[in-house]
Amino acid sequence: MIDILLTNGDVFTMAGDGVGYLEKGAVAIDGNRILAVGPSSEIEAKYQARRTIDATMKAVLPGLIDGHLHTVIAILRGLGQDAPTWHEGVDPFFEQLTPAAVLAGAQLSAIEAIRAGTTTLGDYGPGMPIALPFYEKLGVRARVCTLISEVPPVESILEEGELYPFSRAIGESRLKENLDLVEHWNGAANGRISVMIGPQGPDYCSEELFGKIKAAAERHGLKLHMHIGQGDREMLQMRNRYRMRPVEFLERIGYLDEQLIAAHMVKCSDEEVERIAASGASMAFCPSSLILCDGIVPPADVFLRAGGKVCLGTDETSSNNGTNLFSEMKLASLALDMKNQDPTRMPTWKVLRMATIEGAEAIGLGDEIGSLEPGKKADLILVDLRKPSMMPVLREPVRNIVPNLVLSARGEEVAMSIIDGEVVYENGRIVTIAEDELLDRVQRVSEQVSARASSEVRWRKTFQHRLTLEGRY
Amino acid sequence: MIDILLTNGDVFTMAGDGVGYLEKGAVAIDGNRILAVGPSSEIEAKYQARRTIDATMKAVLPGLIDGHLHTVIAILRGLGQDAPTWHEGVDPFFEQLTPAAVLAGAQLSAIEAIRAGTTTLGDYGPGMPIALPFYEKLGVRARVCTLISEVPPVESILEEGELYPFSRAIGESRLKENLDLVEHWNGAANGRISVMIGPQGPDYCSEELFGKIKAAAERHGLKLHMHIGQGDREMLQMRNRYRMRPVEFLERIGYLDEQLIAAHMVKCSDEEVERIAASGASMAFCPSSLILCDGIVPPADVFLRAGGKVCLGTDETSSNNGTNLFSEMKLASLALDMKNQDPTRMPTWKVLRMATIEGAEAIGLGDEIGSLEPGKKADLILVDLRKPSMMPVLREPVRNIVPNLVLSARGEEVAMSIIDGEVVYENGRIVTIAEDELLDRVQRVSEQVSARASSEVRWRKTFQHRLTLEGRY
Repeated sequence: MIDILLTNGDVFTMAGDGVGYLEKGAVAIDGNRILAVGPSSEIEAKYQARRTIDATMKAVLPGLIDGHLHTVIAILRGLGQDAPTWHEGVDPFFEQLTPAAVLAGAQLSAIEAIRAGTTTLGDYGPGMPIALPFYEKLGVRARVCTLISEVPPVESILEEGELYPFSRAIGESRLKENLDLVEHWNGAANGRISVMIGPQGPDYCSEELFGKIKAAAERHGLKLHMHIGQGDREMLQMRNRYRMRPVEFLERIGYLDEQLIAAHMVKCSDEEVERIAASGASMAFCPSSLILCDGIVPPADVFLRAGGKVCLGTDETSSNNGTNLFSEMKLASLALDMKNQDPTRMPTWKVLRMATIEGAEAIGLGDEIGSLEPGKKADLILVDLRKPSMMPVLREPVRNIVPNLVLSARGEEVAMSIIDGEVVYENGRIVTIAEDELLDRVQRVSEQVSARASSEVRWRKTFQHRLTLEGRY
Repeated sequence: MIDILLTNGDVFTMAGDGVGYLEKGAVAIDGNRILAVGPSSEIEAKYQARRTIDATMKAVLPGLIDGHLHTVIAILRGLGQDAPTWHEGVDPFFEQLTPAAVLAGAQLSAIEAIRAGTTTLGDYGPGMPIALPFYEKLGVRARVCTLISEVPPVESILEEGELYPFSRAIGESRLKENLDLVEHWNGAANGRISVMIGPQGPDYCSEELFGKIKAAAERHGLKLHMHIGQGDREMLQMRNRYRMRPVEFLERIGYLDEQLIAAHMVKCSDEEVERIAASGASMAFCPSSLILCDGIVPPADVFLRAGGKVCLGTDETSSNNGTNLFSEMKLASLALDMKNQDPTRMPTWKVLRMATIEGAEAIGLGDEIGSLEPGKKADLILVDLRKPSMMPVLREPVRNIVPNLVLSARGEEVAMSIIDGEVVYENGRIVTIAEDELLDRVQRVSEQVSARASSEVRWRKTFQHRLTLEGRY
């Protein structure tokens, strides 16, 4: 007797180099692993399950992987857009975040994400010691790190071109926080939670600290996840400090290799992007956020052409403004088509791979999740093809399910999520938590943060405040 | 005793030049008109209603306006993307469409649209005599025309640069169809259905026919809705036939004026776009579709800067792939930011205006719908702000509801739609039709069309068929 048997679905295993389609397919799950995948008739004859789920008119696919997001500022949704710099709108509120607000952000993002088919959260932090007990209870898979920087919180008052000071004590303490996460959480919850190391960016740490970070990552066999080429400030800091561009610097200190996950790269030249890809590093691609913040499409096209692996990320609700990978898939496809003025540049099936198997590989979990194959962890979602946005379902002579998953689905079509073999979402409800209570609390805490921010004057200068006063918000 | 009273909402009237926000606002509806809008305390003291709806934690805003879509091919969803030309994938199936399929397309699009907050469908046809009885029953507002072309169905076998033949008989018959619509449907359903005239494009009609079309439009006081500058084929036809670019031709035949709604314009120069805007014509802006088909962002930024009015459109489910204006609003904002590499280029509040009041003005219904003002038709939606994607709701010191409507909402947040004073959608159900039965029929008819298309060979040459065979779809 096995635990779960899914039958008669339109199964997309994502194994091989395509989408691994099986018509009337079945998936057998025992414990937290996939036991078998195949034609429903065969699998049903072979296994009896405690729970059998008829997946007729459902797409069965690996759970979606959000490889890069910062839930810590999720309750600042809607405060960053429409302005020349995202920081301007968000910072006055960011400074008021309490531990309760950080938890609220993690709860809000995770609830939104799970309801829209995400099963792995690549939460970059900070705030992970607060978020992780919640992720453990919620049942989501999490692949986290925390921001390591040795810059004291003074950067906003620097003159243009002035170097950030580095504080060795701050750097050491942040590295320790990340290593504490490794000690207490890496492999926790039956392996559902794992930890990376997160140096914030090339301009945020001294060479000495970068050396210690790299040594620690190698000692523990961990991924390094870092923002690279994310803005003009970084480029200027690196030029003024080292007379180097970030990629050149990272190459010199030995950071370009398969341990690295590089986020954004919007300020890198194509040649620099190719060098990162050629090193075996992977990329976190967050189209909505970078377009919203800078009007720039991150160079995932260049990275893929150079042979690199790419995961998708929603980045932040204050620069996206959602935590929804279906939305991100559509934009990933259209943004790269638009950038290249070529409607074939980013095919839908490739985007679905970035959200599943290639995303898993990019964050170093390719052996565990991202495809439906025997032996892998059982992270999968059922998408209701009977929703208007997914109809009609055509299978012959052309199959239209994959393009409609990427370009038409909105997230609400997700009918069930199974993570690590457990049903976490079904019948419109997350079964592991009391959603309504949590959302009430999210609203309450957010109002408190907003009220505290009102007591100082910085927010008065923001674009968003002006738009509010003018009756445009 | 009035009919409906909405109380305690976050009301966005969209009156004036902003979003017309009212905290704890109320809307009084009697018959098919808005009677009063104001602070809930005042309005509640003044009116008693047969039905009072508490809109606490709901955004109340004008129903969204989809100014340009072709429902006739909606059951071909997912057959057009990922290829150099959209036609290649869609045409073999298009040729198999029956009247039942045309009806299924209208039903599918309208159901999807209403569930996502659309209250006006700018259906460009063809197929309107089939769709309109359904729209009347459904209760949606519709502003329709039908494609007028005098090109016989041979264009696909033309050599490059060869002129289409024109058939006067075909042109006359198509114009008559459109005028029959005017006669039978303009002003029908208590004014909920109205008719425009739809010459397909500058290359599809002779000068003589254009003259008759314009005269008919003026006689009846109707809008002309036309695709302009939509592709290389049009530019080549116009050059070879007239030695002119489309805009120059339209200017010469007197088509550039406030009667005109110009769709797409992706092949027009900025200067041509400005000339169209300066004439008083309006624009239908369909970002998803044009990016998907051509990788090009339509020049709505140029059109707006030149003082023109713009409505949004979803165009087609086979080139979008959805009929969801929330998705379209997000893409409208991000696509124009990206095109200009400027995150302030297309502010969210302006996009919300394009989907409501400015969209209404663009399609010639600005006096009737698009804002919540006394005397206007009662088309409005309630958006549930208690959904995770809309949370938190901040009102002080910065209000975040508008940016989250545009950038985070997915459509499922719509809790209720009132069209022409009637509740059409609530509690997750469209109340005027039997959705489940219709969707079963949509699936059945689509499978029949697909099966018929299989019997000929053209589909074998499509990109999408190759991707299906290769296991990528």
